[in-house]
Amino acid sequence: MLARHALPDPEALAAAVAARDRAALARSLNLLDDKRPQARRAASRFLATLPGERLNTAGHLIGITGPPGAGKSSLTSALIEVWRRRQLAVGILAVDPSSPLSGGALLGDRLRMLAHDQGGSNVFIRSLACRGEFGGLSAEVWPMSLAMLAAFDIVLIETVGVGQKEIDISKMSDTTCFVAQPASGDSIQFLKAGIMEVPHILVVNKEDMGAAARKTLTELRTTLKKQIDPDGWQVPALSVSATTGSGIEKLADVIDSHRRWLTEHQLLATRRKRFQGEWILKRLREEFGRFGIEQLGGEPLLFESLTQRQGSPFDLYDSLRDQFLANWKRTT
Amino acid sequence: MLARHALPDPEALAAAVAARDRAALARSLNLLDDKRPQARRAASRFLATLPGERLNTAGHLIGITGPPGAGKSSLTSALIEVWRRRQLAVGILAVDPSSPLSGGALLGDRLRMLAHDQGGSNVFIRSLACRGEFGGLSAEVWPMSLAMLAAFDIVLIETVGVGQKEIDISKMSDTTCFVAQPASGDSIQFLKAGIMEVPHILVVNKEDMGAAARKTLTELRTTLKKQIDPDGWQVPALSVSATTGSGIEKLADVIDSHRRWLTEHQLLATRRKRFQGEWILKRLREEFGRFGIEQLGGEPLLFESLTQRQGSPFDLYDSLRDQFLANWKRTT
Repeated sequence: MLARHALPDPEALAAAVAARDRAALARSLNLLDDKRPQARRAASRFLATLPGERLNTAGHLIGITGPPGAGKSSLTSALIEVWRRRQLAVGILAVDPSSPLSGGALLGDRLRMLAHDQGGSNVFIRSLACRGEFGGLSAEVWPMSLAMLAAFDIVLIETVGVGQKEIDISKMSDTTCFVAQPASGDSIQFLKAGIMEVPHILVVNKEDMGAAARKTLTELRTTLKKQIDPDGWQVPALSVSATTGSGIEKLADVIDSHRRWLTEHQLLATRRKRFQGEWILKRLREEFGRFGIEQLGGEPLLFESLTQRQGSPFDLYDSLRDQFLANWKRTT
Repeated sequence: MLARHALPDPEALAAAVAARDRAALARSLNLLDDKRPQARRAASRFLATLPGERLNTAGHLIGITGPPGAGKSSLTSALIEVWRRRQLAVGILAVDPSSPLSGGALLGDRLRMLAHDQGGSNVFIRSLACRGEFGGLSAEVWPMSLAMLAAFDIVLIETVGVGQKEIDISKMSDTTCFVAQPASGDSIQFLKAGIMEVPHILVVNKEDMGAAARKTLTELRTTLKKQIDPDGWQVPALSVSATTGSGIEKLADVIDSHRRWLTEHQLLATRRKRFQGEWILKRLREEFGRFGIEQLGGEPLLFESLTQRQGSPFDLYDSLRDQFLANWKRTT
């Protein structure tokens, strides 16, 4: 019997994750969350061993965000059903603390049971309920999404909020969906005030509420009349009902069409490589501030070089940290 | 004639600001916003020359925040009228980019004209429309509020958003008011999810909307049933109409009662001194990261010592920066 906290072999773990072994997946997520130095070394080797080609060009990383109460979890649940019918394997990281998917509430339980009933290999849900720190997503969410991407066709990160978290999620997703609720002036006002970065797809949930939903959809479309994201994608707005199922197939199609659009424009791999640059820069900024970034060559240069490097992002971060600390007189 | 960018004499400027000289006030805010090294030295002397006793115990620093569209500017405008009738001198820092007070739109113009018509010494409005950076208020807002506090009975900072800015504003205001709009599920959901820090006073605007406003007020009160802030203040919720003027006198009374409560509990001066600690720590964190804070003694120790120091916050920041950089091998 292994010692309770024995670390898994990184290469064997990576192979098992790629084979969609549920226990291995759970172990890998725990490993990526383990702060002990030896665990960090193992996690780094694990990430470096994941199939790079797959991480760069396969699967679909989807972020779903929006205010609490907009029905993101029900919507996620309805999308899972569609993807299952389409024979796609789906992994979910639920960061939203109010999400039933995180909280073990009715919906989450039902989904988990469903997954088990069906043999359990096509839907995997991991709750990270406490990982949505104020002002942003915590550091381990992005590496976890890589482990999931090695295993699933669709990896969906569900988070909550308007503001920094919405930006964070857009920096680790191929496709970001913002879910608004009908008659929610706040959401539209946030969009209008430019406080929110532009998501790739806008969804008005609770279409079954009727006039209010139609009005919100019209307002969103007016706001977005010429809304083109920095890559040139025209942002669509559509209404759905997670309750009745109306519009969900269509939403799954639109989400997929954004991925196809990215591939056709040779943007997918570029985008994925940017995630690594963004993630490492954010960690460096938190740890060493603007001063640290400047000392390491400045943000533009650093970002450029980081997006081109292969290997484990943990190793890249560590080597930059060591480079910074080499100029520090005292070590404490 | 002075050179166009000649720096004002800091001592004379501080005296003129305390005498509520409008031109001097405008100059002092420009000075606090000037990034040139010699301007920064002058600004530092200016801040050190402001009457410390007044900054610690006089006036009332009020923060107003909430989502765009909640009617914060109209509410501010209505409050100004009440305060004017009560013979109080009012200074406004409008950080909200969507605010008519910032944008020179109708309401702002009307207010500025009004102030001029009346001799102009009792209401002073400064727009900082571009200073609400994403993820927080920019660095100069707090020092500017000190200059305003040297001149006015009431200093009100109007900002927009839910999230980091709402926290920032609460770290530089004696009293923070959150303005919600009727039927705005988002705001209440944010409160419930604990995503929003607790403000001192909750205001439902647009009472004239009737049932929706009453419903929102009831929901807020239910959410807040046992809502006590960390100091022990029971957070009240009330409804007003900036349009009809209903409830505005009452709101002004409630805002004032929070200040009296702070004074009675010997919390006002303590709170103001904490603002300085928070401000310097935030600057250090942005510049040198977690590593910098640790090298300088760690957050608890640093915060404790910063709240007890007198003099210019710019000088305090500079001396900590120099202390950090003394351990850096290369200077660039």
